[in-house]
This record gives sequence, structure tokens and C-alpha cells, in this order.
Amino acid sequence: MNTFLGTAVETVRTNNPLVHHITNYVTVNDCANLTLAIGGSPIMADEVLEVMEITGMSQALVLNMGTLNERTVNSMLLAGQTANEKGIPIIFDPVGAGASDFRNETARSIINMLNCAVIRGNISEIRFLAGITSSTKGVDASANDTSSIEEAQLIADQLATAHKCIVVITGAVDVISDGRRNILVHNGCAEMSRITGTGCMLTSLIASFCGSFPDQLFYAATTAVLAMGIAGELAFEQTTGTGSFRVALIDEISRIDQQTLTQRGNYVEK
Amino acid sequence: MNTFLGTAVETVRTNNPLVHHITNYVTVNDCANLTLAIGGSPIMADEVLEVMEITGMSQALVLNMGTLNERTVNSMLLAGQTANEKGIPIIFDPVGAGASDFRNETARSIINMLNCAVIRGNISEIRFLAGITSSTKGVDASANDTSSIEEAQLIADQLATAHKCIVVITGAVDVISDGRRNILVHNGCAEMSRITGTGCMLTSLIASFCGSFPDQLFYAATTAVLAMGIAGELAFEQTTGTGSFRVALIDEISRIDQQTLTQRGNYVEK
Amino acid sequence: MNTFLGTAVETVRTNNPLVHHITNYVTVNDCANLTLAIGGSPIMADEVLEVMEITGMSQALVLNMGTLNERTVNSMLLAGQTANEKGIPIIFDPVGAGASDFRNETARSIINMLNCAVIRGNISEIRFLAGITSSTKGVDASANDTSSIEEAQLIADQLATAHKCIVVITGAVDVISDGRRNILVHNGCAEMSRITGTGCMLTSLIASFCGSFPDQLFYAATTAVLAMGIAGELAFEQTTGTGSFRVALIDEISRIDQQTLTQRGNYVEK
Repeated sequence: MNTFLGTAVETVRTNNPLVHHITNYVTVNDCANLTLAIGGSPIMADEVLEVMEITGMSQALVLNMGTLNERTVNSMLLAGQTANEKGIPIIFDPVGAGASDFRNETARSIINMLNCAVIRGNISEIRFLAGITSSTKGVDASANDTSSIEEAQLIADQLATAHKCIVVITGAVDVISDGRRNILVHNGCAEMSRITGTGCMLTSLIASFCGSFPDQLFYAATTAVLAMGIAGELAFEQTTGTGSFRVALIDEISRIDQQTLTQRGNYVEK
Repeated sequence: MNTFLGTAVETVRTNNPLVHHITNYVTVNDCANLTLAIGGSPIMADEVLEVMEITGMSQALVLNMGTLNERTVNSMLLAGQTANEKGIPIIFDPVGAGASDFRNETARSIINMLNCAVIRGNISEIRFLAGITSSTKGVDASANDTSSIEEAQLIADQLATAHKCIVVITGAVDVISDGRRNILVHNGCAEMSRITGTGCMLTSLIASFCGSFPDQLFYAATTAVLAMGIAGELAFEQTTGTGSFRVALIDEISRIDQQTLTQRGNYVEK
Repeated sequence: MNTFLGTAVETVRTNNPLVHHITNYVTVNDCANLTLAIGGSPIMADEVLEVMEITGMSQALVLNMGTLNERTVNSMLLAGQTANEKGIPIIFDPVGAGASDFRNETARSIINMLNCAVIRGNISEIRFLAGITSSTKGVDASANDTSSIEEAQLIADQLATAHKCIVVITGAVDVISDGRRNILVHNGCAEMSRITGTGCMLTSLIASFCGSFPDQLFYAATTAVLAMGIAGELAFEQTTGTGSFRVALIDEISRIDQQTLTQRGNYVEK
């Protein structure tokens, strides 16, 4: 992991991966800016008539369920099929899974009909996908779903094994699993849940790294989690409210480098 | 009012009300961030297949007409019916009422088919809803509609009485009416109209307070108006342009407390 | 040009032109805030049932292809027809032209069925519209499309002549052409391409100026290009990351004045 960290950011900045997003209209601007900040190139397109073409020219595809509608569900499935055919990694963010039948069915369709490279969610969303009773409260993790780190690891492992993918559960401690290996990330700060879109932005960040390292998804996803957590810590030191915190978070991602990552990265490989 | 102010913010932060928004794609990110800043939990969902379920689990529903389309009008009416059945307060923001037949008809449908708890708009929009000739200029209040405070109070009282709800008219002086009582709020600053979404953000803030105080809507709405005005004043002192003003405004809401509210609140109860 | 610059900003601030946007959901908030920052009044509306009415009351119409769908393409064409009938300038931003058949056909429909007042794009997008092979990479200019300034001028002249409009190509040097005359603008900085929406925001800025000067489109568009470039330079001096850069950019537009424009404007008329 440490070796990987040493060159990952620089590679993304050189590689400039095009990341196709089919995402929500709440945090889309932040996702675009974060993708640019890390060195990727975002393109947002959700019209069924063009998504296959756009995915086909991209290095990664983000499917984010934040503000789904029937039209965009079709676009997600079509774009996802193209991605699978061409070996382009799909990064899936099941925002609000568990909160409505419509979201539940969409989330199930996506994980069953497509091969996702990475699934990233909070503990409530991932519990739902893993078939464990959860009590999603809107789009935020439910307090009732607080599980021990051991439990989160177990759920991540299960889902990762079942779908042959990387699973990222974000929370006080972040868990990354490929079904066999686990990494726990201790970076980040509580303030990050007081601004909208930190989860979505992380998903976009994961996509930029995975687009540049399609053969090292586990480390790519972990690097994104570390970068986001460290940026959150650095941003928090500079701000006195949630508005400026969001601005500083994007600032920090735009200037993060390997040195910061290796020095501040606080993780355990298992 | 003063007693209410003493605990209102803390209650919202503890209560963490889930606020379902069916709103526009222009200011939606600001609305989500402001809801989080005051201590609520925002969820944006506009698909007709899920809005009833989402509203049903929420403490308040925001209907904001900023960028309507035929699909979302249906969603608003369905979500609104659920809210009414379950006693969940609806906060209605008739953005641009008066500007097109489509908006006019939608606004009329919403106030006639649903029981709104609070209607918040600028003088042009509220004049239109009250059936008085107005000359809405896009989504901003028309200069031609500048009315005296007395006139604004009269219109607010009329609309509040007709629809058994709270009416909030924002302007240089903000008027809150429940049909019998009036509160005039003198906080805020002119700069607030130079950034998009201050109206929408206030509507979301009202929803967070109303979600926490469904039985004290008049005071809840007033507290939100005070909080927004005070945050605007404090933000303005720190900034030299409209970009940083918006950031500071969210900062200030995220750290506002009862002391600031009671000390800086500048209002008259009538 | 210099005489025009002397009063242009003040005129926009006094005139407060209503600018109807049919635009994407990625950068729409920035476009609204930038329109307000320069002194315009933005209205975003894309429902086919109301776009003609909204355009009809506006001083300028922005058609931005950022996140097209079939529904909004119809709205764009209808709004555009109204604009043409009433002599309201259309400012067209062919985001991602060249990236998908759907975008290509839409772009062609717009320039062939409507009389655009101004077309603004990067070199890849404008090459596509001019019928020259381009290699659009998503929504950003492709490195393969880097052309000499002379070539950019030629392409701008061609497209401007063919469609009797103003063409603006943004890049390291910006080219403005009305088919006969050229202005080259040397303001701006590379960092502007590291945040999303600088192109879209410039398009909105052009619309605010053109809405106030419908008979001097060439100078109006040039002033907007200068204002954006200068604001970018001033913003860059204050920031250390892309998040704060975006905030500072809006700040600078909100306080730009004729003195700054005339003193810092770095352009060549040809």
C-alpha cells in the first residue's frame, strides 16, 4: 500500500481520466470540482440517447442514486452495460438504499445486472445491499445502524465476496474490503457529515483513482479514502463553519500530494 | 417569542429533523447545506414512485417551484397529500409565481389542493397568490411591487386567513403572519438579494424549525427568519464579494446559537 | 472598444437584464450567482409549457448543452424561436459538441434552426460546429485540438460569417470574431480550467452584457471575456486551491468596475 501511495496522485494528475457521472443534482457540482481537483476530467450526461457513447470514451463510470428518476435508472443500466463490455470500472454509490422501494429495487438491479468495481456507501446503505435489516434514515446513516468495526468488516467482506468487487463503508472508521483483505482508515473528522456530498465526492474521487488504476482497484479505492479523510482533517483546521469547510476541503484535494498522503495516512492493513 | 428563541436552535440540533425537499436544481445544494448547518437532515427526492414513501418518513416537506416541470408537479401534489394525511408540515415556496401560466396554475393547485403550513415568498409572489395584481420580474421581486410594510402585512394576513397557514413575506422588512398576529423582522441586509437562493435557503430553514416544532409554526417560522437575517448581517461584515458572502452565510448558520438569536434579533410583535 | 468599456459594467448594473437560462444542472448555481454578481437577474426554466413565456419577458436567452435531455432540447428550440421572433439575443454554449451524436445533432439543430447572437465554446467544440474534424474529450478541449491563434481566428471568422453571429473561442488566448473583426484577449489564467463551469459562467456573463447592449454584441461579448479573464487573474492571486479560487472568482465579478476593466484589460483589436 505504501509503495502505491507514493505515486498514485501524480499518476492521476498525469493520466487525467475522463469520469462519466450519472449522478444527482444536489452534489453534482462538488463532484465535478473534486474530480478536477484530483486531476480527473468529469463529464455529466444522463440522457439515454448518449450515455453509452459517453461511457465508452471514459476511464470510469460513477452511478450515484442521489436523485433517481425512472429516466435516469434506464440510463444507469445502459451505461453500466457498456462499461462492463469495455472493462471500464463502475463505481456505485447507493445513496439512500433502504429509504424507498424504488431506491431498493434500483440498487438491487444495479448490483445484480452489472459488475460493479467498487460499491461505496454508509453502513445503513451497505447493510441494506448485503441483505441485513437496516434502518436507513433518509440519505444519512441511521444511528440504529451503528455497528462495531468488526461487524462492518464482516458485512463489507460478505458483500465484496458476493459481488466480486471492492466495498467501501464510510464512517468514523472507514472499511475497505475486497472480500479477502481489509484496510481500516482512521483519517477524517466528524464535521464531514455536516456538509452535503462528502460521500458523493469520495465516490467521484474513487472513480478518478480507479480510472487511472483499473488493475489495482483495492489500493486505488483506499488511496481515495485516505485522500478524502486527510483533506477533511486539514480543511477542518482552517475553518469555523460548514460553508468554509466545504471550500477548504476542495482546496486541500486540489493540492494534495504523495508526501501528505504517506505522512498523514492513518490506516491498518489486515 | 423570546422564550421560544431561548431553546429553538438547540432543539433542532438535537431533534435532527428529516426534511424532504422537492425543489429546484439551481439552489438545491445550498438548501441541503443550510439544512445540515442548522441541524436538520435533508433528503431530496422527486420521483413520483418514491415521494410518498420519503415524505412519510420525514418531519417536514419543502415544495419549491424554482425549476418546475410536469413530472415534478405531480410529485409535489402526491407528496403533499401524504404530508397532509400524516400531519407533516408543508413549507411552500412559490418561486416565480406570476411569471408564467404554468407556475401560476401550479401555485394555485398547491395552495388549493393542499394544506400548507407555511408559505414563504417575496412580495411579488405573495401578491400573486393573494389574487392581487403583481408584476413579478422573473424570480425576483419586482420594483413595481414595492409596497409599504402596512400593505405587506395586510396581504400576508389575508392569505394566511384564507389558507389557515403562516405566511412569510421577505423583503427589506420581513413580515410573518398567522392571520391574526404579525411579527416584523428588521434583521438582514440588502446584499442577500445579490446571491441566488437566499429565499430558498430560508424556506429550508423554516422547514427545519417547523419539523421540530409542528405545534408552534408561527414561532418556528419566525425563528428561521431571524436566524437567516442575523446570519446575513454577520456574514456581510466578513466579506468583500458575493462569492465569499454565500460561504460566510452558511458558516454563520452552522454556528448560530440562542445567545446570538436573542441578542441580535430585531423584531416587533404586533 | 475602450470607450465602450468605460460604461459597460455600470450599464449592466443599472439595467439589471433578466437572463433566461436553459442550462445544465452541474454549473447552474454558479451561472446564477455570476449573473447576479455582474448585475443581471437570472431565471432558470426548462419546462416546455413555460419557456416561451419566460423567454418573452427576458433580455437574453442562454442555451447551454451541458446536461441535455430530449425534454430540454425541445424547450431550447421553442425558447429560441421566441427569442428570434422578439429580437432577444441567444447566447449558445455547445458544451461537449463532438462528444456524442445526440449532442452533435442538437448543436446542429440549434445553429441551423435559430439565429444565435453569440456562440461561445472551447476550440474542440467550435471546430466541431465549423465542420472541422475535432477530437473533443468530454466537455474539455482536447489537447489534440490545440491550434495556433491564427487557426483559431480563422475558424472563428468562418463560423461567424456562416451564421452571421459573434463567435467566442476561449483558451490560453481568447478569440472574439464577428466574421470581419477580431479581438484577442490575453487575460485569464490556466487555473480557470481546474474548476468546473468557468466556460458556462462566461456564457452567462456574455448574456448579461448582450442583454444590456443588444445592438453592440461584439463589444458586449468582448467585455464579458475581459471581465472573466481579469476576475480570474485577481482571484488567483488570493487563493491556494481550487475551492477558494471559485469563491474568489465570483467575488471579483461582483466588485469589478470600469477602472479595473480598462486598466487590466489586455487585448488586441484586429
